Amino acid sequence: MPDRNDTIVAIATGNGGAIAVIRLSGPDAAGICDAVFRAADRRRLTDAASHTVHYGKIFDPADDRVIDDVLVSVFLTPRSYTGENSVEISCHGSHYICQQIVELLVYHGARTAEPGEFTLRAFLNGKLDLSQAEAVADLIASTDRATHTMASNQMRGGYSAGFAVMRAELLTLVSLLELELDFGEEDVAFADRARLGGLMDEISAKIERLVKSFSYGNVLRNGIAVAIAGSPNVGKSTLLNTLVNDDRAMVSDIAGTTRDVIEESIVIDGVRFRFLDTAGIRNTEDTLEKMGIERTRLSIGKADVVMLVVEAGASRDETAGNIAPMLVKLDLRPEQNLCIVVNKIDKSSAGMTSLLPSEHELAATLPSPPACGFSLIGVSAKHGTNMERLFEYLSSAASARALPASETIISNSRHYEALIRASESIERACTGLRNNLPTDLLAQDIRETLHHLGTITGEITTDEILDNIFSEFCIGK
Amino acid sequence: MPDRNDTIVAIATGNGGAIAVIRLSGPDAAGICDAVFRAADRRRLTDAASHTVHYGKIFDPADDRVIDDVLVSVFLTPRSYTGENSVEISCHGSHYICQQIVELLVYHGARTAEPGEFTLRAFLNGKLDLSQAEAVADLIASTDRATHTMASNQMRGGYSAGFAVMRAELLTLVSLLELELDFGEEDVAFADRARLGGLMDEISAKIERLVKSFSYGNVLRNGIAVAIAGSPNVGKSTLLNTLVNDDRAMVSDIAGTTRDVIEESIVIDGVRFRFLDTAGIRNTEDTLEKMGIERTRLSIGKADVVMLVVEAGASRDETAGNIAPMLVKLDLRPEQNLCIVVNKIDKSSAGMTSLLPSEHELAATLPSPPACGFSLIGVSAKHGTNMERLFEYLSSAASARALPASETIISNSRHYEALIRASESIERACTGLRNNLPTDLLAQDIRETLHHLGTITGEITTDEILDNIFSEFCIGK
Repeated sequence: MPDRNDTIVAIATGNGGAIAVIRLSGPDAAGICDAVFRAADRRRLTDAASHTVHYGKIFDPADDRVIDDVLVSVFLTPRSYTGENSVEISCHGSHYICQQIVELLVYHGARTAEPGEFTLRAFLNGKLDLSQAEAVADLIASTDRATHTMASNQMRGGYSAGFAVMRAELLTLVSLLELELDFGEEDVAFADRARLGGLMDEISAKIERLVKSFSYGNVLRNGIAVAIAGSPNVGKSTLLNTLVNDDRAMVSDIAGTTRDVIEESIVIDGVRFRFLDTAGIRNTEDTLEKMGIERTRLSIGKADVVMLVVEAGASRDETAGNIAPMLVKLDLRPEQNLCIVVNKIDKSSAGMTSLLPSEHELAATLPSPPACGFSLIGVSAKHGTNMERLFEYLSSAASARALPASETIISNSRHYEALIRASESIERACTGLRNNLPTDLLAQDIRETLHHLGTITGEITTDEILDNIFSEFCIGK
Repeated sequence: MPDRNDTIVAIATGNGGAIAVIRLSGPDAAGICDAVFRAADRRRLTDAASHTVHYGKIFDPADDRVIDDVLVSVFLTPRSYTGENSVEISCHGSHYICQQIVELLVYHGARTAEPGEFTLRAFLNGKLDLSQAEAVADLIASTDRATHTMASNQMRGGYSAGFAVMRAELLTLVSLLELELDFGEEDVAFADRARLGGLMDEISAKIERLVKSFSYGNVLRNGIAVAIAGSPNVGKSTLLNTLVNDDRAMVSDIAGTTRDVIEESIVIDGVRFRFLDTAGIRNTEDTLEKMGIERTRLSIGKADVVMLVVEAGASRDETAGNIAPMLVKLDLRPEQNLCIVVNKIDKSSAGMTSLLPSEHELAATLPSPPACGFSLIGVSAKHGTNMERLFEYLSSAASARALPASETIISNSRHYEALIRASESIERACTGLRNNLPTDLLAQDIRETLHHLGTITGEITTDEILDNIFSEFCIGK
């Protein structure tokens, strides 16, 4: 763990803007800045009130060289992000200038901050709990409404409040049980076993719901994975291009996030959909084709939504005949969504109905229906015909996965792991209670549950946990 | 020209940081922000004092959804960058969040800013003159001490002050001459012709010096161009790698600037050296080789410094024999610098002197010495031997080009063109005076000189000039 008593400095903004911000935090933030700052009104930052802005110049006292004209904001403990005395220097957005200023501040006593050290200090000073601190990184990485809302709720503490309630309930239980232990020889039962069991079952169910929410949270966090499958030359690439370039889809702007996403991705109704790479199937050379098929199989396995693209035949029967052999090759799980996209549906002047079998007609041609069910949509990817149906389908596939807005959604895998462990220990306690296990063993299992829940919000933590969390932050956060 | 009476908004920081800053400027900056900002202390920004910071939340009044926790700084006219009422919103550095906030502000009455519009307003409101406004863009693009110092001096107005003095002198001259014209019929001479001539010659010389400084300013602005030439396999690439990776050179960090530089570039003693691409020469296929040679020839023509790399021979004579045929192929101009780099100098155990001819010995083998003179340095690029001599050479090549620190350096080509025209008209005036041209023609030429000088600092300007200048800025500046 880095030293907490010194003053840290870092560039807090991204490269390439008109202005940049350099952050200082620690007991001597204003004093160190004063050494290299000449305020236009000649006042010292150490004398400045909190939440005031000061215009002046950053200069090198060694040779009186002016580095930049800046605005310096002063925040006094505890009314700052970190809870410490803090200073923010707003300068011109040249990386050279930023580096010069940071070097000067380091020369005059600041230390360059470790990744996430500002947020770590905010946590250590009680400005945020651990899950809120983690939400700061998620918020900065958010690229659409869904990830933004999750991170935002978590940062605002609604998330933590739920855990606080559970922990309070468990603490009451465990103290009653431990009171019995103190009177151990006298065989007193302070805790009504039936009420105890009811409460424990309730908490166990709550934890279970949170564990289950992770699959949805994970989908929101990473985007809904869509695989576009089908034989060569049925128009898969055209379909993807039409989806990505349609006005109804906002191409997800991922500039400035820390997550590398090389796939195409679009946002529909605030939810991100990312298209998995299934392009390899079109290579003709044997080995390559095998690799392509293998990659497609993996993509289909990972997908939340599979779009099977087939070409419309000359009749409804022929179209059904195109679909069936492809469909039986797909081995989908019940929780996946399958959409059969019949492309080039506008090639008959008789209209879509003459070429598109009903879901019933199609099902009749199959040995057995797919485990996940399916929808059938006729489109022309080239002409954009009926694409709105596809967008509606994707949007409804997202809503079907959605949890009620009131529900807490877990999207952080550290929290997920802690909840899995908490779930195991509360389950052990529930079973133990039913089997009349000794009070000390019950109390021990509840203590463990408390421990695991406590690691989520940071009531219980270790240097190792903190190092793991904050080392994934960027410098300046 | 965009409307000056509305309130403009733009993201002012680069992508990918912990925090981002959104700038608003215009009469209703605080009012528009108030519509979407809920201060923690419930106060309104329109009631806030200048240079104060306010913590609170940006929310969408339509559905009460919170977008982000932010700090808002308030600046009241005229004490802001633009001279107008201004607000800066410091939010989490997610591009999604920034876009949401900008959209909200636009919905509530702001307009997205044109490129450079904040600085344009600062100019129109008299906070900066035109050359200072242009320096803001240069300052943001500065990547090393040399470009930073030039932009910094220009922004701080020392540059403009020189022009103001010249313009004042010329104005005195022209008013004296015009006074004579008013008394035209009476044949009075208010202006002593000898003194007039002296002053005009002085100003003409000043302008001439500024014109000449441009070649140096241009070198500083773009970096000193170095071409590495030589036969295949003499170690040109190794030399470049060693130069770029040496601790003595700071690899110029150009991330975040608006100028695309794809060449390798290093900074020595605050000056940037960029290595021109001469790699093509190594391709063996005929057409490619020709293209490579042509490209090398162009690079050598554009270079300020040419490094001719040859391999050390087995003796001083053999090394001289390697150099001479390459040297005669180079057709350098007197103002270029030529450094003959004898590579692999450590291959003899007898030491460098046994393989490296003296400059005198080498000159004796040449039909005629190169127009630009030359230096001769033996190195081993692979082992880093004697590389410090090369760094010293480059550094001294930069100093040789340097002008005294007190001298104003022109680096802006718009200013350069205006000075060329000013130089032409003052020269015409000087010649006219010597030839006893009528006073009205003299006055006309001096008026023209005044006009051209005035376009530099913006006393004289047109919408077209302003459009040209500010459209090259980024949005948010």
